[in-house]
Amino acid sequence: MERAGRSSTLGSSDEVELEPSGNSATIHLDMTAGGGSSSSDFNPFGAIDDVRFKTDDDLPDVMVPPFFSKYGDFHTIDWQRDLARDRLRHKMISKKKVDFPLGLLQSGWDAGAGWICVLFVGLAAGATAGIIDIGARWMSDLKTGVCADRFWLDREHCCWSSNDTFYKDDSCSAWTKWPWMINYYNSSSLLFSFIEWIFYIVWAVAMSTLAVLFVKIFAPYACGSGIPEIKCILSGFVIRGYLGKWTFIIKSVGLILSSASGLSLGKEGPMVHLACCIGNIFSYLFPKYGLNEAKKREILSASAAAGVSVAFGAPIGGVLFSLEEASYYFPLKTMWRSFFCALVAGIILRFVNPFGSNQTSLFHVDYMMKWTFIELVPFALLGLFGGILGSLFIFANIRWSRFRKNSKMLGGNPIYEVIVITLITAAISYFNPFTRKSALSMIQQLFDRCEDQVEEDSLCDQNKALSIAFGQLLWALIFKFIITIFTFGIKVPCGLFVPSIGMGAIAGRILGITVDQIFRAVQATPGHSEYFTCQIGKDCVMPGLYAMVGAAAVLGGVTRMTVSLVVIMFELTGSLEFIVPTMVATMFSKWIGDGISKMGVFQGIYEAHIELNGYPFLDSKGEYPYSTVASQVMRPSIHRQVADEMSMSDLRELKNELSVITESGMTLGDLESLLRQTDFNGFPVVVSQNSMHLVGFITRRDILLALHTARKTQPYVVTNSIAYFSDGVPDSVPGGPAPLRLRKILDMAPMTVTDQTPMETVIDMFRKLGLRHVLVTKNGKVLGIITKKDILQFMRNKDSQ
Amino acid sequence: MERAGRSSTLGSSDEVELEPSGNSATIHLDMTAGGGSSSSDFNPFGAIDDVRFKTDDDLPDVMVPPFFSKYGDFHTIDWQRDLARDRLRHKMISKKKVDFPLGLLQSGWDAGAGWICVLFVGLAAGATAGIIDIGARWMSDLKTGVCADRFWLDREHCCWSSNDTFYKDDSCSAWTKWPWMINYYNSSSLLFSFIEWIFYIVWAVAMSTLAVLFVKIFAPYACGSGIPEIKCILSGFVIRGYLGKWTFIIKSVGLILSSASGLSLGKEGPMVHLACCIGNIFSYLFPKYGLNEAKKREILSASAAAGVSVAFGAPIGGVLFSLEEASYYFPLKTMWRSFFCALVAGIILRFVNPFGSNQTSLFHVDYMMKWTFIELVPFALLGLFGGILGSLFIFANIRWSRFRKNSKMLGGNPIYEVIVITLITAAISYFNPFTRKSALSMIQQLFDRCEDQVEEDSLCDQNKALSIAFGQLLWALIFKFIITIFTFGIKVPCGLFVPSIGMGAIAGRILGITVDQIFRAVQATPGHSEYFTCQIGKDCVMPGLYAMVGAAAVLGGVTRMTVSLVVIMFELTGSLEFIVPTMVATMFSKWIGDGISKMGVFQGIYEAHIELNGYPFLDSKGEYPYSTVASQVMRPSIHRQVADEMSMSDLRELKNELSVITESGMTLGDLESLLRQTDFNGFPVVVSQNSMHLVGFITRRDILLALHTARKTQPYVVTNSIAYFSDGVPDSVPGGPAPLRLRKILDMAPMTVTDQTPMETVIDMFRKLGLRHVLVTKNGKVLGIITKKDILQFMRNKDSQ
Repeated sequence: MERAGRSSTLGSSDEVELEPSGNSATIHLDMTAGGGSSSSDFNPFGAIDDVRFKTDDDLPDVMVPPFFSKYGDFHTIDWQRDLARDRLRHKMISKKKVDFPLGLLQSGWDAGAGWICVLFVGLAAGATAGIIDIGARWMSDLKTGVCADRFWLDREHCCWSSNDTFYKDDSCSAWTKWPWMINYYNSSSLLFSFIEWIFYIVWAVAMSTLAVLFVKIFAPYACGSGIPEIKCILSGFVIRGYLGKWTFIIKSVGLILSSASGLSLGKEGPMVHLACCIGNIFSYLFPKYGLNEAKKREILSASAAAGVSVAFGAPIGGVLFSLEEASYYFPLKTMWRSFFCALVAGIILRFVNPFGSNQTSLFHVDYMMKWTFIELVPFALLGLFGGILGSLFIFANIRWSRFRKNSKMLGGNPIYEVIVITLITAAISYFNPFTRKSALSMIQQLFDRCEDQVEEDSLCDQNKALSIAFGQLLWALIFKFIITIFTFGIKVPCGLFVPSIGMGAIAGRILGITVDQIFRAVQATPGHSEYFTCQIGKDCVMPGLYAMVGAAAVLGGVTRMTVSLVVIMFELTGSLEFIVPTMVATMFSKWIGDGISKMGVFQGIYEAHIELNGYPFLDSKGEYPYSTVASQVMRPSIHRQVADEMSMSDLRELKNELSVITESGMTLGDLESLLRQTDFNGFPVVVSQNSMHLVGFITRRDILLALHTARKTQPYVVTNSIAYFSDGVPDSVPGGPAPLRLRKILDMAPMTVTDQTPMETVIDMFRKLGLRHVLVTKNGKVLGIITKKDILQFMRNKDSQ
Repeated sequence: MERAGRSSTLGSSDEVELEPSGNSATIHLDMTAGGGSSSSDFNPFGAIDDVRFKTDDDLPDVMVPPFFSKYGDFHTIDWQRDLARDRLRHKMISKKKVDFPLGLLQSGWDAGAGWICVLFVGLAAGATAGIIDIGARWMSDLKTGVCADRFWLDREHCCWSSNDTFYKDDSCSAWTKWPWMINYYNSSSLLFSFIEWIFYIVWAVAMSTLAVLFVKIFAPYACGSGIPEIKCILSGFVIRGYLGKWTFIIKSVGLILSSASGLSLGKEGPMVHLACCIGNIFSYLFPKYGLNEAKKREILSASAAAGVSVAFGAPIGGVLFSLEEASYYFPLKTMWRSFFCALVAGIILRFVNPFGSNQTSLFHVDYMMKWTFIELVPFALLGLFGGILGSLFIFANIRWSRFRKNSKMLGGNPIYEVIVITLITAAISYFNPFTRKSALSMIQQLFDRCEDQVEEDSLCDQNKALSIAFGQLLWALIFKFIITIFTFGIKVPCGLFVPSIGMGAIAGRILGITVDQIFRAVQATPGHSEYFTCQIGKDCVMPGLYAMVGAAAVLGGVTRMTVSLVVIMFELTGSLEFIVPTMVATMFSKWIGDGISKMGVFQGIYEAHIELNGYPFLDSKGEYPYSTVASQVMRPSIHRQVADEMSMSDLRELKNELSVITESGMTLGDLESLLRQTDFNGFPVVVSQNSMHLVGFITRRDILLALHTARKTQPYVVTNSIAYFSDGVPDSVPGGPAPLRLRKILDMAPMTVTDQTPMETVIDMFRKLGLRHVLVTKNGKVLGIITKKDILQFMRNKDSQ
């Protein structure tokens, strides 16, 4: 169960230690006493840091360091350092290339590892998606009945395989409805419906309860959509067990159960999470990726693309989703691999063919008509509506999530919450034909052209469309909106794409029917414009297209996706023609949504949940029109008024001094007391306390390990031994104890900025270079330090102003 | 004609000053004598630099600086600085938002400017592409004849409008062939063909000569494909006039002429250049973009996407091309706008409807069959072939281009070269039906399914396919390959996409026919596998698909595009099914190509031309497994052996000392003599010559302007006046002349790295932050400087090792 079981409430902010206290993977100790040769027999993690301060020639040849990075749970990785480690590893393998068979093979394996890994991920993601689709379909039908002869078949396959005649409600005699099981056959009676209703509710509650139990007992990280956490993980955050095998197994099973239970949730977000689990699990087959957190994220980016690819049947959309929404560090090489991975996953899904329709796309539409320019007005209106609805949804859902988090009653009883929500959902949705069927079939019905309808469809009947269907749709929209607010966040696997698309499709179809009627009315009047030419007996406009545009608008309003959303929609229709309406709606939706949230571009639902959970996520999208300089943000702070703005909890800030280590002159005892008295994660090393000229940076973890080892293995090192971080170490100190050489654990290449550097530039450096901290200097002297935490705090303060 | 006329040979490397000597846009002079108030009446460029060292409160309120950046020709822009200027501008406009009608309007206009600008660019790019397509089509047909009644119609429209019956060769009686004009009607005679041939050659030569004359006389930058230069411009290089209106006009006209002349060249690359010209021209309507080089590049990125969108009818492919190939700085906001721009351009092109087919895509294919897994073998073979052919092409073309550049005969006589190439092309290509017709129709024919053929097609006739067509195709491939090597680089507008696609399509079709025959042969043998089931009378495989895969393979081999190439091909077919073959071929093509060029990922044709021309382009794709540290690359160099590696031409390096300015103590005379004795573009400012502790950085241009102005406007400033860059300036120096205050021209936030920083990190910083130079420090002391030029030289040295 890995470490996921450690806590059952996911991501409550008090658990997240924003600034890691033990960050370094590496320790390389070089201690000599009395000028002997270096005795580096203690080396638990390998000389990985060497790449920072060693040149080509003096690389260790004998000892191959075990290249893995070990970050604590809820810690942030150091991209530059991890990538440097990978370059070192790569160089060592390149050197071996000359050794004919073995070295060359190893080098070839190393070069191909990334491709092989994403190939496996693609295969596995496609297969997983197929199995989940089949399972969810079967279990979903279980709510209404079971296949008499072959219980393992879902309704459609049951009826197909028995060669039975279909009834009007898409059922057949081989499909045994539950009332039949208890020998009640009068299907027109109210009691029959009542029994059906009871079974429907019981099954739904049973499934969702099972899902939440699985999650609670086996893998607490398996709940929710997972996309906010994936975003954080891809940006360099470490959450142990979040992508582990238990999470994968439980989330797969739980997802089948929860989506079959009829709750207002989708499979698509969790599918991205599952794909990332697969990526993580497979990455351990390739030490290059498994043991290097930064490199692993290349595989995870590709996995996220594969997840969207199988969720929507849209490989290009998947890659763009990974680029736009999920990924942080996304070089072109990763993009190309992601594309491959997404494509493989899509192809495999088509082989599995879970829907039996040979369609890979989640919804299949094939519009034959063209839209007219005047229709851009209703499309833009749909965009406005989507932006408003999305913002409302985010606002309400975040409010409710915050309440859930702070309320003991709700937070402590996730199982009761799930049961109550399922009861309400199942009880109410049964009475509306649009909510009773699965969300996917509802959306497909709303997207379809009327000409395609084989069965009688109330949406396409001119008379019914306005009376019955219109009311049912409106009711379904309101119900979906309210129930989804409470559903997104319960402790079962639950995504948000399909409910959003569902709401949008309903709203769009409503508008489509309305516009159709208006066009007809206008056409009926004499002297109508040439725009309004409807053929008799056919639709005047395409209400299905309106449903699709509405879906894009609401999904855009909720997630604030742009390019990837439009491309996903494009891949559903396959026609350039229909990008324009989608794009117009998405643009309006995003403008309105961003305008409402007043915070620029940050407040999609995922960003909102990230902020709610207090994850250290540095958004890579925004542009910050601030005008503060580094010295105003760094700690210790110089300006009192800035200090006032920030949290005053840390009393050390008031002392207004920086804890530094001098490159020589401090004794082992001094260092130990410094470590005891402070809890900083690292210390700048300076020439002297007076000059404060910067030499390098050392992490708490490195120095702790070094001192510990020195104490343990070198008996002549005593409390009074002087520690040297400089080159010129005397062979022995006359009249004093043996010196302690610590140069090799020093990072000689810390990132620095001057005190007058604008914060925009500093933020840019953090984002683009993946930094954890930066030192602030003035005239060569160290003034302070800015950590990722300081940056996040600064940005939040600015945002809330 | 702008400054484009300055030189007629484009981009010879001696013209390109790699390191700009006058870089700064800004100067803010604060000079007082005897402690008076500051008299900053000299302010030619505005207080733009202020953002670097001013805080929120002391921004200039009265004077609105004219926000424009002025970089010299062939200079590199400073991204951080330009973006900082934009943030300042944005903040000032945000402040004005409270002024009700005007300020709010201005703020709204500012927010929408980007969208409006790309809307215009999209409209204009679509219209331009439509006009060029129509023009080129008409002129291309002019080589064979003219429309009798309506000379302005091309052959197809001429025949359509006259309601004439079509002849076998797609001609009609209304279309007057040239021999008819001289009253020779015996179309079956050899003389008729001879006359046709002569007219064909004469027209071709006339058109290409006109094109080269236009280019030579009016706009030398209008030649070539333009993509290498666009890449450099987008990466921050300034080439004045390259995107100007004259270049636009001449390249449009020249492109019609050159592509109509039948030369082996394409319109697609130049179309990207034209779109960027449009972007540049429209950006001047919006000072936010026109006057800020970094912001302008956002518009140019969108324009490049629009260019590819109209060239191929592939908007998503266009965006990905801009992301993958063209752009350097491509935030998501720009991506979203690029998408919009590309889409608008595509829609407009569909309205213009140049081909009369309502198709926006350059080629339209609609395959009905499926491919089998065993066919992945020939697809991979096509990939290998494409990689090899592409590499050979790059090698040969670069060799020839270098010869052209160094040869006086060729370099000085671009007109004769064009005439000779056209003569050869026209004379030979007339005799092969595949080369005689326009490249586009040839490719379309090769892509097509055989079932679609309305007219008799030698490719689809089982007997002819193997005998006549096979030989003709082989001959066309060899001819195309050789002639394109000499064509790409002549001084007319010429792109490379269509010739590459053409070569690939021919090769693919050849393989397709072969595989088809093999399958048939296998099927004829008893006990054949189930894979080889061909229906009688139909194709066994799709030779058209092979042509398309081959096209992708060769284009991939030449340009080393990956994702965007596959997406463009996807947008041509619109089916997920056919991505897989394209992707397999592209992958193999890239692997082989990169393997051959041995340099990793750098040597696409565009990168090769960039290197040939010596542009300062820092590739944003590669990963560099080097292990050098900053102190080994910086100038002045410390290590003799490193200095040996580098060019020894600059004798100053041997002096092994860094020219610095002290923050106080240097007189105006000292500064002037420093400027005279050195030609560095900037100087670190230090506390003192002894300590060398870094205070800031000052550019040559800033200091020159400041001193010049001081001499001119402040009579009491004399040679002995002491210049102060520090805060603590004495009001007056007892017994000395008045001090000179220069603090405000000092950049207090230079980027620094320590001497031990690995070069990978330094290169990363240059690429991701768009730096021009970085200062190298050790223990707070300045050791040296690394400029973009040093980085490029370092990378080239490493590459060639």
